[in-house]
Amino acid sequence: MSEIRFSTIERDEYTLIRFELDTIKPENLKTLKPPKVNNAKGVVLSGRGPTWLYCYLVHHYHPTRFIAIYDPRIGAIIVESHWPSYSVGDIIKINEEEI
Amino acid sequence: MSEIRFSTIERDEYTLIRFELDTIKPENLKTLKPPKVNNAKGVVLSGRGPTWLYCYLVHHYHPTRFIAIYDPRIGAIIVESHWPSYSVGDIIKINEEEI
Repeated sequence: MSEIRFSTIERDEYTLIRFELDTIKPENLKTLKPPKVNNAKGVVLSGRGPTWLYCYLVHHYHPTRFIAIYDPRIGAIIVESHWPSYSVGDIIKINEEEI
Repeated sequence: MSEIRFSTIERDEYTLIRFELDTIKPENLKTLKPPKVNNAKGVVLSGRGPTWLYCYLVHHYHPTRFIAIYDPRIGAIIVESHWPSYSVGDIIKINEEEI
């Protein structure tokens, strides 16, 4: 059985959602319960996992203000925004200590 | 300058969108022009690229019937569906020859 451990850190403008997993299979998406967030903020996703898990989470968090993907070499890259002060392709600097 | 080459293959139920790239930077998302598709079908994404590029494309193709991510070890995993006959976590078998 696969298990995903989510943890969240609240920041003023976004919720940092980190996940850890041992293994994941596509069928696990059917029962996944990602953490509830405040949709009036953005979401930054961070964790080691397959691309399709990230893609699932991006759709799941679609109602939030923006979604960014944390890449340790770059920062958090905004891939979706519904708010004028956040633009796709922009990078949010994340404190490495909080990842 | 970064360049992404998209190619599409039309199938009855989905458009297979494949991309190839040398390098990509987050700022390239600002000017990316993914191929237009028929939103009455699904989309299957395939290519070697960073997770944040996939996540951008998933949001871009949000209006389509479903979105699946091709993983060569598994098949195309549905990560988002707006149509009853396609469920998140299901796998679409893709003919390897068309990838």
